[in-house]
Amino acid sequence: MKPPINLTGSVLLTDLYQLTMLQGYHDSGMEDIAVFEFFVRKLRPGRGFLMAAGLEQSLQFLQGLHFASEELAWLASTGRFNNHFLAQLEALRFTGDVHAMPEGTVFFPDEPILRVTAPIAQAQLVETRLINLLHFQSLIASKAARMVLMAPDKLLVDFGLRRAHGAEAGLLAARASYIAGFTGTATVQAGMEFGIPLFGTMAHSFVQAHDNEMQAFEHFAHAQPDNVVLLIDTYDTEAAARKVVALAPRLKREGIRIKGVRIDSGNLTDHARQVRQILDMGGLQHVTIFASGDLDEHVLRDMLGSGAPVDGFGIGTRMDTSSDMPYLDCAYKLEEYAGKARRKRSEGKQTWPGRKQVYRSHAADGRIAADVVTIEGDAQPGEPLLMQVMRGGQRLAATAPLSDIRNHAAENLARLPEPLRQLQEPYVYRVEISRALHELAAQVDRDSASDK
Amino acid sequence: MKPPINLTGSVLLTDLYQLTMLQGYHDSGMEDIAVFEFFVRKLRPGRGFLMAAGLEQSLQFLQGLHFASEELAWLASTGRFNNHFLAQLEALRFTGDVHAMPEGTVFFPDEPILRVTAPIAQAQLVETRLINLLHFQSLIASKAARMVLMAPDKLLVDFGLRRAHGAEAGLLAARASYIAGFTGTATVQAGMEFGIPLFGTMAHSFVQAHDNEMQAFEHFAHAQPDNVVLLIDTYDTEAAARKVVALAPRLKREGIRIKGVRIDSGNLTDHARQVRQILDMGGLQHVTIFASGDLDEHVLRDMLGSGAPVDGFGIGTRMDTSSDMPYLDCAYKLEEYAGKARRKRSEGKQTWPGRKQVYRSHAADGRIAADVVTIEGDAQPGEPLLMQVMRGGQRLAATAPLSDIRNHAAENLARLPEPLRQLQEPYVYRVEISRALHELAAQVDRDSASDK
Repeated sequence: MKPPINLTGSVLLTDLYQLTMLQGYHDSGMEDIAVFEFFVRKLRPGRGFLMAAGLEQSLQFLQGLHFASEELAWLASTGRFNNHFLAQLEALRFTGDVHAMPEGTVFFPDEPILRVTAPIAQAQLVETRLINLLHFQSLIASKAARMVLMAPDKLLVDFGLRRAHGAEAGLLAARASYIAGFTGTATVQAGMEFGIPLFGTMAHSFVQAHDNEMQAFEHFAHAQPDNVVLLIDTYDTEAAARKVVALAPRLKREGIRIKGVRIDSGNLTDHARQVRQILDMGGLQHVTIFASGDLDEHVLRDMLGSGAPVDGFGIGTRMDTSSDMPYLDCAYKLEEYAGKARRKRSEGKQTWPGRKQVYRSHAADGRIAADVVTIEGDAQPGEPLLMQVMRGGQRLAATAPLSDIRNHAAENLARLPEPLRQLQEPYVYRVEISRALHELAAQVDRDSASDK
Repeated sequence: MKPPINLTGSVLLTDLYQLTMLQGYHDSGMEDIAVFEFFVRKLRPGRGFLMAAGLEQSLQFLQGLHFASEELAWLASTGRFNNHFLAQLEALRFTGDVHAMPEGTVFFPDEPILRVTAPIAQAQLVETRLINLLHFQSLIASKAARMVLMAPDKLLVDFGLRRAHGAEAGLLAARASYIAGFTGTATVQAGMEFGIPLFGTMAHSFVQAHDNEMQAFEHFAHAQPDNVVLLIDTYDTEAAARKVVALAPRLKREGIRIKGVRIDSGNLTDHARQVRQILDMGGLQHVTIFASGDLDEHVLRDMLGSGAPVDGFGIGTRMDTSSDMPYLDCAYKLEEYAGKARRKRSEGKQTWPGRKQVYRSHAADGRIAADVVTIEGDAQPGEPLLMQVMRGGQRLAATAPLSDIRNHAAENLARLPEPLRQLQEPYVYRVEISRALHELAAQVDRDSASDK
């Protein structure tokens, strides 16, 4: 038996400097509680909101955190660390608290979506992998949400594994896009591991491997009688649509019904119109049209805006790589150590100090109206978005079913202000930094002014 | 003991349609030999060449290909496949041949870098994961090579794990960038698994966790006396450089030598100049300056072109996501089945049919001059680039050491025409399609014209 999928990963999924810093904390006897928060600094032009995802895998990673014996042996062999420190690593587990926004929550720059409160060695060590997990799934959920908003009533399927950046990216992109509202994925392992609905048709190679296209269609229909979706653009799209019309009655006599056709090249809107007409004239009004190939939210908007008769879309590369914005300007920063608020003041990268909470207010119509970022304990109007999810290294609730997360995401998208729903960017949602947080920052600056 | 890193991944790292097509091939008794090739269709403007990488993981994937019992049980539970077909999957292994360009080879659009020759079920099934592996590492090696060309004598370190798209992307980006000529990586697991040299300094949080910066520097120096690289931009870069000058004699008395400083924000060139001056005036001419933060090949060119006194660079997000071009327009296409050449003619996505070879000619100065893509057996001037690496499912050579691959890559970069070495794009390298290949394509088109 092969091991089950391990998405938590090794503790060595970290940067070397985390370990050299841990050696430093260890040698100086620094073991007080540290507070780190993960947030996005700013959005690039053309993007108005983000969607949080990746918390589940982050918590799994924290729960499983440990150094395996062969990892310790390898670290020792590098000669970089002393034995007393390595013995401490052997015993290291995550014993801290975590507060976070639930997955599927819409968020904005400057708003922490996760806070870790733990002895500094633990909180520091996990930085790299926590960013790696939260960054990627939030990136993809945010991208996928835009497509969902542009094609709300359509079948949307993730086709991206092949050009995702590695296996984990493909699997987590399937998860993140499903959270954001996609109907399913083509990635089989994501179906098995996450229970995400699977969709698939055929590739051009299937058609090419046959000596003629009609024979390929017949073979496929017999092999997958409950899921006959035929790819019709290998040679000539409209000619193939006419073959589908010719084939349908023959299959019908055998009790097989053609469900749909897929178009993957050329002007998708034009081809969809012509194919729709050919199918309708042939009595195949029930046969759906599925489109794929270089799709993103702008293409979806344009196609559907111009009335393209398309029922579903397969969306791959541009979603799984978030191609217009392949990374978020995000960080996981120390905000407090040993009870004292801390702040980084590097040019262009200043942070807000202290343990924070985000409060969100809604307008009369239920749409979200404004957020306030403040220090914990400074209650503000609206609802707090960060909730405690781990205490003393233990999760406070079982893994949320993906369907619940998906519902939460859909609710969040429904409450977006209309300009954000319509991708009318630039539209800047109001995120206020509270007076209390401004005052704390000023105080931290005054306290550290002596350090010159 | 935890299982060793499994970069080959499950056979279910595939698209559902591969399995539905396999059911189709099975039910129709199609089990002849198929030939698929992986190639890049075109480059986006601003890019002139590519570097092949990912072959090693692809071969490991093919060697390990099998369906585990729980995977078969799960497939059966979906109700999509019949028992006879599932029994065939249980016995499925990869028994085919593979030809490929060695990793580190420079290549261009239209040139296959990998060819699979195997019974069609095997060759079809592996499409998704082979693309996933070859695409990503070639993407990153190609991006990293550009940085290596811009900073040939500098220390270049991969800092990208945190914003790479998942764990596998981070690990494979460390590998691909090392192949392209990077000095090493910060990713600890990549050091353990691939033997890539590790580099690391400290983070802002280390400085912030201390009540003053000088104390943080001292603690770090004592904890890592052989690797004292101090991060100096947490509060005020030049003030911190003066602290380094003040600290150096104290550490020297203890036998500790400061190796370098890192700057991570602001105008890196300006700060590097001022810091260099402060260090030199303080007698620290031997202390190196390391820069990081939003770097890519253009920033490297500009900084070094303006004489910035920087000795090394930490390069993260923009390399690990290949941010200017986060994906390649690549494909793995059927070129032959049952001894007959095949061709896809979809609009804008036509392929060249048949088993191909690429021949490369060099100029008198050793630089590469032109490539010819032709059908196998049609010898052309120059050296053939595709070599057989697997026969009947068995590898023909042991895993090449990374150092060999790296040397091959360096040799390839050294032989690039000068405009490509200088990133003077658009510069289009000559890739000719042979007469024999044109004729084969025309013949395939004639043969299939009857299928209308």
